[in-house]
Parts: sequence; C-alpha cells; structure tokens
Amino acid sequence: MQPPAAPLTAVPVRDFAGVFARVQPHMAALDIFLHAQLEAFEPEIREMADYCIDTSGKRIRPALVFFSGWQNEATVLPALVQVAAVVELVHLATLVHDDIMDEAALRRSRPTAAKKYGPEAAVLLGDALFAHALHLAARFPTTEVCAAVSDSTRKVCAGEIVQTLRRRSTAITRADYDRVIDLKTAELFRVSCALGARLGGYGDAFVADAARFGRSLGIAYQIYDDLADFFGREVRIGKTLGTDLASGKLTLPLFLLRERLPVAERSNLEAELEGRQPAQLARRLAEMGEFSIFEAVRDEIESELVLAEAALAKHPRLPPSEHLGALPQALRAQIGALR
Amino acid sequence: MQPPAAPLTAVPVRDFAGVFARVQPHMAALDIFLHAQLEAFEPEIREMADYCIDTSGKRIRPALVFFSGWQNEATVLPALVQVAAVVELVHLATLVHDDIMDEAALRRSRPTAAKKYGPEAAVLLGDALFAHALHLAARFPTTEVCAAVSDSTRKVCAGEIVQTLRRRSTAITRADYDRVIDLKTAELFRVSCALGARLGGYGDAFVADAARFGRSLGIAYQIYDDLADFFGREVRIGKTLGTDLASGKLTLPLFLLRERLPVAERSNLEAELEGRQPAQLARRLAEMGEFSIFEAVRDEIESELVLAEAALAKHPRLPPSEHLGALPQALRAQIGALR
Repeated sequence: MQPPAAPLTAVPVRDFAGVFARVQPHMAALDIFLHAQLEAFEPEIREMADYCIDTSGKRIRPALVFFSGWQNEATVLPALVQVAAVVELVHLATLVHDDIMDEAALRRSRPTAAKKYGPEAAVLLGDALFAHALHLAARFPTTEVCAAVSDSTRKVCAGEIVQTLRRRSTAITRADYDRVIDLKTAELFRVSCALGARLGGYGDAFVADAARFGRSLGIAYQIYDDLADFFGREVRIGKTLGTDLASGKLTLPLFLLRERLPVAERSNLEAELEGRQPAQLARRLAEMGEFSIFEAVRDEIESELVLAEAALAKHPRLPPSEHLGALPQALRAQIGALR
Repeated sequence: MQPPAAPLTAVPVRDFAGVFARVQPHMAALDIFLHAQLEAFEPEIREMADYCIDTSGKRIRPALVFFSGWQNEATVLPALVQVAAVVELVHLATLVHDDIMDEAALRRSRPTAAKKYGPEAAVLLGDALFAHALHLAARFPTTEVCAAVSDSTRKVCAGEIVQTLRRRSTAITRADYDRVIDLKTAELFRVSCALGARLGGYGDAFVADAARFGRSLGIAYQIYDDLADFFGREVRIGKTLGTDLASGKLTLPLFLLRERLPVAERSNLEAELEGRQPAQLARRLAEMGEFSIFEAVRDEIESELVLAEAALAKHPRLPPSEHLGALPQALRAQIGALR
C-alpha cells in the first residue's frame, strides 16, 4: 500500500500553500508584528519566545483571519494583523504544551521547545505566549476579542484534555470523536473567521456565516490530518506515519475500519489501540485498502466541505467569499494528492 | 535548632488568618461565584476544575482585592468578587503548572492535579483555568482588567521560568533573586490591590499607592515564605522544611549565609546547591544560627513592610487603609512565631 518511506530531507508541501500566496503581504506584516511583540517579553524569556515564533506552523488561522476580513489586494488592515497574531500565539502556546505531552522531539524539523528548554520551562513558556496573546486581545477598543479568544482557548484545552484522557481507550463513540475535533481544532478556525469578518467591518450575517464556514473547514481539516497520518507520504506531510495507531488515538480512519472489520480482527485492532499488542501498521493499511477506508473518510470530509461552502453561498459578492471559497477546493486537491 | 518534626496531622495555621476573618462574607461570596463558574467548563473537565478550586490555597490575592476596594462591613461589591475570582483562577492555574514541574505529590494535604489526573491533563487543565480567568476578565465593561491580568500573568510566568532555569545554579546575584520574587509573587499581589482599589471606586492616587503597597507586601511575603522553609515548624506551615536547599533554589536565607560563610564552607554550600554533594540541612541551620541569618532576613522583610505602610500613609482616612494596614502587622506576628 505504502511507497517505501523517502528520507525526510525534502521540504514538506505546506497545506493550502497555493491559496495562501494571496495573503503574502498580510503574512509579511504578521511576521513583523509578531517579532515586534518580543520586546514585550521579559529579557530572560525573549529568546525562547522568538524560537517558538520562528518554528511556528502553517499559519492557517492567521490566513483565515485575513481572508475573512478581506478588503482588496492593496489593503492590509492593522486590526486584522493584530487579531491574526492573537490566534497564532494561542495556537503556538497549545503547540508548545502539546509537544511536552507527546514528548515530541521535533516539530517542523527543529527541536521542540520542550526538548530545547526542558519541559518545565516549556510549560511556563506556553503560558507566557498565551498570556501575551490575551494582552494583545485586550488592546482592542472593546472586550469582544478577549472574550471570544479566551472562550475558544478553554474549549481547545477541553478538547485536548478529553483526547489525552481517552488515549488507549476503545470505549469511544463517533459522537466523542466528533466532539473532540470540534473543540480542539474547529473552535479556533471558527473564531479566526468570525473575528476576521468582524474586524474587516462586515455585518452580523456574514460574521455568523464566516464562523460556520470556519468551523466546518476546521472539522474537515482535522479529519484530513487524521487521514494523512495513514495515507500521507512522509516526505510531503513532514512527519512519521501511523503515529495515531501507535499511540492509541482512535481517529476516524481507525474508527471506520473497526466498524467494518470481522469480530476477531476487530479484537486485534482494539488490543493494538489499547497497547496490549504491538501495532501492525502494514496490516491495518492493507485492511484499510480492502474496506475502502480512504474513500469513506474522504466522503466524510466532503460533507463538511459542502457545509462550509453552503455557509458562503449567501454572500457571493462579498470580497472574502472568493478567497475563503478557494480553501475547500485546495483541501480537496490535497486529499487527491494523498493517493 | 529545629524541634523534632511533629506529624503533619494538625491543620496548618493559615497566613493572615486573623485579618482575613474581616472579609469572611466576601470569601463566602467568592466561593459561590467560583463554583458557579464550573458550569462554563465543558462537562468532561468540570470535575477536574472543581477539584482545583477546592484545593485552592490561602486566598491571599482575593483578600487583597477585597481590602483594597473596601467600602464598609455590609457591602460586598459584585465587581470585587468577580475580579477576586480572576486573580485566584490565575493563581490556581500557576499552582497546577508549578506542581507538574516540581513533581509535587501533595498540596495542602491533598494529591496535586498533576498526581491525580496525570501531568498531561494537568498542563491543559491549568491552561483552561487560565483561559477562564481571562474570559471572566473580559466581562468587565472595559478592557482594563483583561490587559492588567494578562500582563501580570506573563510576568509571573517569566519569573517562574527564570527561577526554573536557575535551579542548581550558584551564579546568581542578589539583583537576580529580587527580580524573580518581584515577577513571580509581587506582581500578582500588586495587580490584585490595583484592581481592587480601581473597582472599589477609588481615585488614581490611591490606585497607584495600593499597587505600591501590594508589590511591597508581595516581596515581603515571598521572603517570609523563603524564611519559613528553614525556620518554620512543619506542623504550622504544612510542608516539609529545607526543600529549597534540597532542590538547589538559592533563596535569601541561603544567599545571606553564603555571603557570610568562610571560603571553604561556602564551597561546600555551593556544591550542595549545585547537587554535587548531598544537602546538609542540620549543618546549614546551625550556621544560620551562628551568623544570625534569621535576624538578617527579618530585617529585609521589615524594610519592605515599612515601604508598604508608607504607601498607605497618604490615605489615612480611606476605608481600605485600615484593613490593608493590618496585613504588615500580621506578617510581623507570623515571623515572630517562627522562632
């Protein structure tokens, strides 16, 4: 099923890379803004914060802010840059804390903060990044950004906690899985779109639909990420495959496989997830082929992407719609490229 | 020097207990308010948040809020209760994270969150508590509370990071020690007093002086805490003695001892702090007696308490002054009781 693993030297293809080119000036402004924030950090932790900002991820949430508040090619609104920094810093803080828990050594081919500075310092560094995000949020004229971002953050943490507590458990329903990805991923996508639309000056109707779009795109993106853990090519996605099976995380591909397997084989899969037997990745991949799991997961992602597009359909002439609308298309292309 | 350790069954004397009796109705309102917050947490993490609220500490920061915004015996201002909850939740979040790093098993005679739920969940639980604190802060009409609390939180984390990174190091100046306690303890004391005074309706001059009072009291309190680690009676302070020496934390009593020791003995002390030799608590306590370290540290605390009182001196007739003024007196009595 799997091509032989290529060495991890090639630069991974960035998600949504083609679409994100449209907000290149916005991303450049964000980079300048984020680095300027380092001045606010106490000198002793400035270098650590700088390191985290530099190793930051794909900047998907800032892009959602910029697209949702889009004006025209020539305009980069400072309020959008500021709120993009807020959501990115919150995301970075959660990455720093996630890497402690996963005992991950590398993120985007560089040592994680937990590895570089020790887990103790990394706990506090994540806290400091999060605190600074909220401090930036408090610089808006009203408390709306602070309220939205702090509420979302609590939800993201709740989602991660539930996922952590359920690791190696197979007593999980589909509703449980849906709730975790809604909290841990879709929530910050949702708030990025809502705040982008609001600060871009759009009305309540579009803000609500942008939020709906963001949530559905977030769900789709997380399921895609879970699919790529089995069907990606390591050189493309930039990480080891099969980690969810190995670490006992019951994601949608495994969920659907478990439903379809004959009873005896299902018990073996559950024993692997629960850590009572060694994970057999090659065998599970073969079964995923046999039971068309890729196609079944792709169909689930497609349903969410259709919902995302439906949220935009009422606003065909608004400037953000064209750009947001390109994202589901880009995700479809990435799913196609997995096979 | 030390009386034989009594079993840890007696209830520790709470710091400032006598003075805190004056805000008993406020503390009761705070308890109701904090427990009502649990509804806002996702069901899966509600019990964990409840556990942390119940094991919470001495409620010093809420008391500072209540005293700084004091109106009269009969009045408990809802805004003060809300901001007291904010500073307490921030403090709780830092305790949850501290206990992960210290690998502490017990806090106030109950298992720590890290011990009870595992370090992974505890990292995220601390994040969720902090996020909820900021969410409550965003419910005030202006962004002032959010801005102040998030800024203070970043400073508290910076202080803790610096302290963590310096553990087992003896290349520390007195200025380094002062800076760490200013960030990790005095900052949240300061902001508690400033926000209490502000939300109690007092003018800018008193807000600034209440902040000054809080900062000095915070510095004095942290030095007292560091002193009690050597000179406390376990049954009174409710924790094991000598932990700072054992864990290589160069606090003021050790700092002053190191300055006074002859060169050869100083090298031994440094070797103990750096973990190259086993800590000799009894010997260090004997030397502390010989070099009058208790008295020297007490004098340093006294200087800060005088500064705290001086900040209040300009406002003798304001209702908060009488109550805040009782706190330095109470701390002096506690220091006296250590011997």
